[in-house]
Amino acid sequence: MKLQINLDDFRVTKGKDFRIKKAKTKVKSLYRDNAHYEELIAQFRSEIDELQQKMYAQDRHGMLLIFQAMDAAGKDSTIKHVMSGVNTEGVESHAFKRPTSGELDHDFLWRHIIASPPRGRLGIFNRSYYEEVLVCKIHPDIVTKIQRLPHETTADLKRLFKDRLQDIANYEAYSHRNGIHIAKFFLHVSNEEQKKRFLARIDTPSKNWKFEEGDVKERAHWDEYMTAYQDTIRATATPECPWYVIPADDKKNMRLIVSAAVLAEMKKLRLTWPKLPQDQLAVLAHARQLLMSEP
Amino acid sequence: MKLQINLDDFRVTKGKDFRIKKAKTKVKSLYRDNAHYEELIAQFRSEIDELQQKMYAQDRHGMLLIFQAMDAAGKDSTIKHVMSGVNTEGVESHAFKRPTSGELDHDFLWRHIIASPPRGRLGIFNRSYYEEVLVCKIHPDIVTKIQRLPHETTADLKRLFKDRLQDIANYEAYSHRNGIHIAKFFLHVSNEEQKKRFLARIDTPSKNWKFEEGDVKERAHWDEYMTAYQDTIRATATPECPWYVIPADDKKNMRLIVSAAVLAEMKKLRLTWPKLPQDQLAVLAHARQLLMSEP
Repeated sequence: MKLQINLDDFRVTKGKDFRIKKAKTKVKSLYRDNAHYEELIAQFRSEIDELQQKMYAQDRHGMLLIFQAMDAAGKDSTIKHVMSGVNTEGVESHAFKRPTSGELDHDFLWRHIIASPPRGRLGIFNRSYYEEVLVCKIHPDIVTKIQRLPHETTADLKRLFKDRLQDIANYEAYSHRNGIHIAKFFLHVSNEEQKKRFLARIDTPSKNWKFEEGDVKERAHWDEYMTAYQDTIRATATPECPWYVIPADDKKNMRLIVSAAVLAEMKKLRLTWPKLPQDQLAVLAHARQLLMSEP
Repeated sequence: MKLQINLDDFRVTKGKDFRIKKAKTKVKSLYRDNAHYEELIAQFRSEIDELQQKMYAQDRHGMLLIFQAMDAAGKDSTIKHVMSGVNTEGVESHAFKRPTSGELDHDFLWRHIIASPPRGRLGIFNRSYYEEVLVCKIHPDIVTKIQRLPHETTADLKRLFKDRLQDIANYEAYSHRNGIHIAKFFLHVSNEEQKKRFLARIDTPSKNWKFEEGDVKERAHWDEYMTAYQDTIRATATPECPWYVIPADDKKNMRLIVSAAVLAEMKKLRLTWPKLPQDQLAVLAHARQLLMSEP
């Protein structure tokens, strides 16, 4: 049975008009039951894996998938479930934590650019340079006290964040033109669902390790975060480097939509097995002859 | 005796009107004799060293000096003579040769960005990403056959080089805003002087190792290179990230002008020894007491 997903419902290619209040955190289920979900996700994994192999063989395109979300939206598990079918040699995953002192000595894109995927590979960023216009906007002390920027650049923070958004958009357009394509995913969980998941982390001993007190305090800034996400998506969604705003209240449904989006982005590259030129085909034919004539 | 150099004669901050035919390869000598030159260059070195130490102590600004030139213009010896007075811990020098296969798997800025200097340091690029709009323009086979770009991006090479210039300008403006300041030097040697220097490499056994046959063949493309340099400087010279076009026919004179320019760029940052806040001064006073009261 063919899955009916209209990715246009989730893809933002022109940021200008994006309104986060209109973005859904829950949509009609794409799967009937667990068995159906397993069947669908397995099919996606195998298609993504095949396209990645073609990407590797062609060695011209690379792809970077960026995952951003509020806490407990399910970034880790989504990356795990969507990517688990792809040859590990074809995927590079990077989780960005607080920058080290050595990383703070550089511009904010630096540690991310180093980790950007080479041609032939799928790169995954679990959080990214987008934190520089999200958490940094809600907690500007990070910019003025921790990041050691020249004072003249932090005097006007509104300007600084506007510049950062433009710099990110410039970098992504550049990366695309140079064969490394970037797609961004905002896993959009509702405030109520996050509360439920935090409570589960507190009440379930096996989930206790995931709980951090600071995460709950951060809920006080929910609306500011939503505004920051809206500003970010408005400034950086383009046809070449789109954002996908994925309803995250149902994790399995989210994984199916993310899988469909990853597949759609890869299909844009029109990946095919490389065709050998005539003279190379002759070499193959000759090699076959040699092999067959072995005693 | 105070040295009279008007850096405005060499600095390009608005590329639009730059004409390479008007740029001099030789100017009136700034030094009377060798002794005078040694005295002047030593003074420059010590001033550059002091500012670099302040930069290190402040730990907010970094600086990248990019050197580009036709062969035999004197890039290596200029870097050596201008920088030899600076604490080696404060300088990072990178000479960019042909990219490796692993580097070609990334976008063209990638290997250069990795090598960009951290806060507190002077970075030197001996050649740079500018080769991507210089030698690559004269020999487009590098772009279409060696760099493994997606075919759709190499179909329109005029567009590709225009995009590259814009991407470089964007990156440099971004870097500047994030505290890593970039100044670019074109060491401008005349066609006749290059010929003399190549002949010296051929005729002087101790210089033979520097000679490469390909360098002489490249002279056939001289005018194309000059046009490519002009286009490059026009597209990427800004008040924040200027180009310096330095007459290179007299190497000692060139080193003095480069030194003066490096110093001027560092002075723009208004580097000072960091001042401690009151509470930190109290900590110092207390530490003094402890030291003095030791038996």
